[in-house]
Amino acid sequence: MKRIAILGSTGSIGTSALAVIDAHPDRLRVVGLAAGRSAEALAAQVQRYRPAIVAIADAGAVPSLSAAAPAGTRVRGGAEGLIDVATHPDVDILLCASSGTTALEAVLAAIDAGKTIGLANKEVLVMAGGLVMDAARRRGVAILPVDSEHNAIHQCLHGRGAHEVQKLVLTASGGPFRTWTADRLLTARPDDALRHPTWQMGRKITIDSATLMNKGLEVIEAHWLFGVPASRIEVVVHPQSIVHSMVELTDGSTIAQLGVTDMRLPIQYAFSYPDRWGALLPPLDLTRCGALEFLPPDTARFPCLRLAYDALSAGGTMPVALNAANEVAVETFLAGRLPFPAIAQIIERTLSAHDVQRTDSLAGVREADRWAREYSRALTGSLELPV
Amino acid sequence: MKRIAILGSTGSIGTSALAVIDAHPDRLRVVGLAAGRSAEALAAQVQRYRPAIVAIADAGAVPSLSAAAPAGTRVRGGAEGLIDVATHPDVDILLCASSGTTALEAVLAAIDAGKTIGLANKEVLVMAGGLVMDAARRRGVAILPVDSEHNAIHQCLHGRGAHEVQKLVLTASGGPFRTWTADRLLTARPDDALRHPTWQMGRKITIDSATLMNKGLEVIEAHWLFGVPASRIEVVVHPQSIVHSMVELTDGSTIAQLGVTDMRLPIQYAFSYPDRWGALLPPLDLTRCGALEFLPPDTARFPCLRLAYDALSAGGTMPVALNAANEVAVETFLAGRLPFPAIAQIIERTLSAHDVQRTDSLAGVREADRWAREYSRALTGSLELPV
Repeated sequence: MKRIAILGSTGSIGTSALAVIDAHPDRLRVVGLAAGRSAEALAAQVQRYRPAIVAIADAGAVPSLSAAAPAGTRVRGGAEGLIDVATHPDVDILLCASSGTTALEAVLAAIDAGKTIGLANKEVLVMAGGLVMDAARRRGVAILPVDSEHNAIHQCLHGRGAHEVQKLVLTASGGPFRTWTADRLLTARPDDALRHPTWQMGRKITIDSATLMNKGLEVIEAHWLFGVPASRIEVVVHPQSIVHSMVELTDGSTIAQLGVTDMRLPIQYAFSYPDRWGALLPPLDLTRCGALEFLPPDTARFPCLRLAYDALSAGGTMPVALNAANEVAVETFLAGRLPFPAIAQIIERTLSAHDVQRTDSLAGVREADRWAREYSRALTGSLELPV
Repeated sequence: MKRIAILGSTGSIGTSALAVIDAHPDRLRVVGLAAGRSAEALAAQVQRYRPAIVAIADAGAVPSLSAAAPAGTRVRGGAEGLIDVATHPDVDILLCASSGTTALEAVLAAIDAGKTIGLANKEVLVMAGGLVMDAARRRGVAILPVDSEHNAIHQCLHGRGAHEVQKLVLTASGGPFRTWTADRLLTARPDDALRHPTWQMGRKITIDSATLMNKGLEVIEAHWLFGVPASRIEVVVHPQSIVHSMVELTDGSTIAQLGVTDMRLPIQYAFSYPDRWGALLPPLDLTRCGALEFLPPDTARFPCLRLAYDALSAGGTMPVALNAANEVAVETFLAGRLPFPAIAQIIERTLSAHDVQRTDSLAGVREADRWAREYSRALTGSLELPV
């Protein structure tokens, strides 16, 4: 029996993870749940799963959550609460499925506590990849990628050493604007972007998919997870999202992982690893998928991908600034107050102004994050659409 | 330094293997060469590589080969000669690249002598898979598949156990007649078949590719190599020959191996295994391959594939009869004396008449082979075209 805690249990990945746990009652048990602000959904989950501990980042929601929780469940709030869930002694695997940067401290604490980490949150590695991977190595803790692409690469590598790897190839659906001209992109509205062709995901990540920043963040994440430099991480647009990613080996052979587009697969993989359990879903039937296409990404129309590569090459706190500026710009776009191409412009100008620091402390990371949010928020004012 | 002997060194795979050895003079050395009848080409190879031993199956060619061989090279002839090459004490890896059934005894002798086997010959396993795999297990000898598809599966498995495997998926180019109607197939001539769309191969295997028998033999081969029953081996037509084969795992995830269509890749893999060396060829660029298609095979137009599945299910000597009847029918077709669809008819009628025996001795295998050749040869008379 593996005992699971989930940070972000009310989100898209979190609810998929609970579905995987439901399917394996003899193998998996929920012992911890945590969410950001969705107190009502979290309360319903607590009543159903009766975990040992639950936390909500929004500390103001603790009283209502306490009222809903069964007697045996400890209720906590705020950033400290997330850490309490992540480090609870009953937890074997922490699934980090929250979006954004709030989970960072909790993940580091879980690593120190020797928990296996299932990582579906990009920001943790984008902001503090060096700190996190160093801590995991020191503590002998496995970081199992749940992001579809990194999970695919983990499966393709299957223990192969870095010396066998020539190149990681991340596939990208290309997003809803793949075929839009640069002129048409000026008119793109949040609702256009939220109609993602192949994956059902949260709002923030769907916009990141439309700008290709999602893929850029994944390049940075892949760098930290697999120890491969940016120059040997490639992105290929694959509109069908059947091949989830690939590894080119030193002899020119390529190993790919394919599957249906459902997050329950990589989540179950992380929970079952190093074992592999039966299928929850009908398997892929390649003869019914239509032709599979692979195209080079267009960084002229989608400069965010290039910006992410640049930030990774610059190193230090540059990816922190990239991520923070992107979050601010995407929020503003989702609020209908920014034209789509301005997302990249805000990020680019923030990176140009950023004074890169080393990332050997969480405090430094947090300071770069704070600075970039402030700077980019000021920029959005100058680029905002009239409301 | 790995010391290599090649059975079938003058054929298509054999010469590709020598190219791989040429590319790695510090890692690979030729110590044995053998061919069937191409005495002149073999003599040239012997002068170039100066192996410790050389053999030609056509014993009549021994004198001319002896005249050409350098002083340090032992020259042998006939089936015994092949065994002497395969078991020579200097040999680390025996690459079995001859077509047909003559190599069977030599491969078994090499296994007994503890040699690693690189297997590019299908008939060895189709005829005597049980005997060969049992011997290899007993002796702790690795059988490394060099056939592109099985090599792909070996790379996809990468040590994964049978309990993780749901299904093997062999890809087939579909051959030159993939889009031909049943009526048009009646008119197919050897020259039409020899224009294979994606792979440059020998004449026999190219016809087998046109009938899909090649894929059928590969299904049988895969059964023995990977211990998977026929019901969990699938064939998918993939005209681009970029995905060389796939493994569906128990959780529904699929692992695929992709690469350029050049036999030097799987040959180098077998020579380097378990290590992996640098690329001899420019790697695959998926963005320049066009769309990849996957289609179900049509066993109505190409019944040989179904016949191979049936023979594997029947077990015992039935695959021996399948292979023998196929060789006879293909020879007759290549001689221009048989319509293309009659290849399958001859095989089907031979299988119907075959009295299946167990395959626990080479003698039994040889007897079934002899019977099926005689029976199918008699059948070709009744179906022959007027010359």
